[in-house]
Amino acid sequence: MIRELAERARARLAEIAKGNRDGALLAMARLLEARWEEVLRANREDLEEAERAGLSRAKLDRLALRDKDLKTLAEGLRQIAALPDPLGRIEGLTKRPNGLRVGRMRVPLGLIGFIYEARPGATVEAVAVALKAGNAMLLRGGKEAFRSNRALVALWREALGEAGLPEEAVALVPTTDREAILEMCRLELLDLLIPRGGEELIRLVQKEARVPVLAHAKGVNHLYVDERADLDMALRLALNGKVQRPAVCNALEAVLVHERVAPLFLPRLEEAMAAHGVELRACPRALPLLPRAVPASAEEWDREYLDLILRVKVVAGLEEALAHIARYGSRHTEAICTEDPKTAWRFLEEVDASLVLWNASTRFNDGFQLGLGAEIGISTSKLHAYGPMGPLELTTTKWIALGEGQERG
Amino acid sequence: MIRELAERARARLAEIAKGNRDGALLAMARLLEARWEEVLRANREDLEEAERAGLSRAKLDRLALRDKDLKTLAEGLRQIAALPDPLGRIEGLTKRPNGLRVGRMRVPLGLIGFIYEARPGATVEAVAVALKAGNAMLLRGGKEAFRSNRALVALWREALGEAGLPEEAVALVPTTDREAILEMCRLELLDLLIPRGGEELIRLVQKEARVPVLAHAKGVNHLYVDERADLDMALRLALNGKVQRPAVCNALEAVLVHERVAPLFLPRLEEAMAAHGVELRACPRALPLLPRAVPASAEEWDREYLDLILRVKVVAGLEEALAHIARYGSRHTEAICTEDPKTAWRFLEEVDASLVLWNASTRFNDGFQLGLGAEIGISTSKLHAYGPMGPLELTTTKWIALGEGQERG
Repeated sequence: MIRELAERARARLAEIAKGNRDGALLAMARLLEARWEEVLRANREDLEEAERAGLSRAKLDRLALRDKDLKTLAEGLRQIAALPDPLGRIEGLTKRPNGLRVGRMRVPLGLIGFIYEARPGATVEAVAVALKAGNAMLLRGGKEAFRSNRALVALWREALGEAGLPEEAVALVPTTDREAILEMCRLELLDLLIPRGGEELIRLVQKEARVPVLAHAKGVNHLYVDERADLDMALRLALNGKVQRPAVCNALEAVLVHERVAPLFLPRLEEAMAAHGVELRACPRALPLLPRAVPASAEEWDREYLDLILRVKVVAGLEEALAHIARYGSRHTEAICTEDPKTAWRFLEEVDASLVLWNASTRFNDGFQLGLGAEIGISTSKLHAYGPMGPLELTTTKWIALGEGQERG
Repeated sequence: MIRELAERARARLAEIAKGNRDGALLAMARLLEARWEEVLRANREDLEEAERAGLSRAKLDRLALRDKDLKTLAEGLRQIAALPDPLGRIEGLTKRPNGLRVGRMRVPLGLIGFIYEARPGATVEAVAVALKAGNAMLLRGGKEAFRSNRALVALWREALGEAGLPEEAVALVPTTDREAILEMCRLELLDLLIPRGGEELIRLVQKEARVPVLAHAKGVNHLYVDERADLDMALRLALNGKVQRPAVCNALEAVLVHERVAPLFLPRLEEAMAAHGVELRACPRALPLLPRAVPASAEEWDREYLDLILRVKVVAGLEEALAHIARYGSRHTEAICTEDPKTAWRFLEEVDASLVLWNASTRFNDGFQLGLGAEIGISTSKLHAYGPMGPLELTTTKWIALGEGQERG
């Protein structure tokens, strides 16, 4: 059944690439507005079942659609429709010594598998980005959101039809068991498989996949406060990273502080964090400077809390900070606060992460903030797209050659 | 042991990226010239054992190093050293509305695993491309070439030392059993794993790998001779594709001929191919026009012969040609011969292959021919690099952000 959906989508790829993709996005925005009640009804059924099943408050919260979501989703669709078309451009067309003209043509990746958890808004946003770039999409959402996802995919298929595009371009896998994940992992008809969710899901897909995977994994993100940091700025960046939205992947999880400024900075950090209800977990050198902190256990330095908890470590300097990040970071987002450009550039060059920041909050690792206009998620795989994936990151290039009968000698 | 080699290489990645990489390539060229006798001695031992083991003539031929190889390898190294440095550039640095400057910095992929068969020259060429782009490389060559590869890697490590680079940047896996392949497939320390060789190897790696893989798979390449083709040109392109070097992945395996020109073209094709000893295997419609051809079996339309054998099929037109290529092609190299630009552009746009050519030979799918200066192989994976992979294709970009204390509101 999954294979059949994939085959039907593949058969229509050329039409999708050539069709009125922006028209489908705009039709979807209109349909969401006209038929929001249908979506909410399906979502209420999901919520009721999830409550009976005893889902946590946080998970119910992620599952629930609200009226303000309609505005966000419809506006998002219109913004993506207004972005320039990522397809069709021919890049670097060059005449070779034998007269052959060669260049690279931007084309869709093809058929993308998307395995995601809970939040039904992703059924609108991720499909919109994929479709903008001319791709078909096979969705496998979480069990809890099945009715919501089904209602949204039904609207997508209507929107595709209104724009004259084949409705096979968006398909929802009709089962939500683990078998469906395994089957997608082995479906060689997929040009790309994107798993977005918890560590367990990502690890399962990376282990089982026989198709290309771009993982959207956890963010164990650090801020290094250098001896030459502006400490007022460092405090603001630490607070913004930790408390502005603690449950997202670009939130801050640990602060590394140069030993020379630790006695000055740590008491201020503790006071500011306490005012926002943040619990500090500290290394042995930081503990004496943080009376309210608890010791960080040896096992938690690579943990992503997604909560109001922050690790603090005193380091001897840049070298130790770099080594700590290389060992415990998750290649997601890393930041330095310093007024010394030489130290900053060494950090920018040597830290291996999808976004490295100098004097700015880790919260900027986001497709909108970096100017992509939209994103399907943040890749922590280095291949193809490292960081936020917008429409352009869901394309590839193929070579073309325009000749006049050239042969190889 | 493999893990240990990988860990040692990873620990030196920053030094490799910053070091005198071109110096190491030039040192390797000098060392090859000065110590070629050592390499040949090791190669002779490999050849003697391979003969005793009863390897085929073709395989012995691939295994053997000759004096002309020295010139090719040394020249290749000097050419790659002379290419522009792919690293360090910051692309598209843009000021966001909040004043944050964001852009993408070119960086090495990191540690690359390379699993390859037989030909020892690859131990020089592939490492050169990887090193040019600042990567470390873990090599697992074929059993038959073990002594030759060991001698070449010993020279690489000497060359690295001469250039002040850590010798850990190039390591040869000391065993050549299947276990070594499986261990590399599961080694999460690899940023990329490239398998280059027969179908069985590629399939094994794609099945077992838990790290990103770019497959270098077979080329089932077609030439479509349109009704508006210049038939003299079509004949030359077919010959060049098939006979100039039949055993390589960009050689031609099948010709599709429009039914209107088949009666004129096929007899000429048969005569020309016969003069070069090429056996034709034909579809039922082509057979009556090709008295010397044998029928193509139903199972061989997706076969890569790598030999003086060519399939021939008569098609009703462009649609049937596109459908046949979509079904049987391997997304490697596809060509059309026509004087009609409209037909040509539809073919260029709709065929999904790493290189699509108009009026030129399939043999141009090659890093040197397309202007990359060098290549490590031809990727048939659509992700990251589709087609020949030169130094730039062995890099990635990470985002950097230069701020003045920006927070998210």
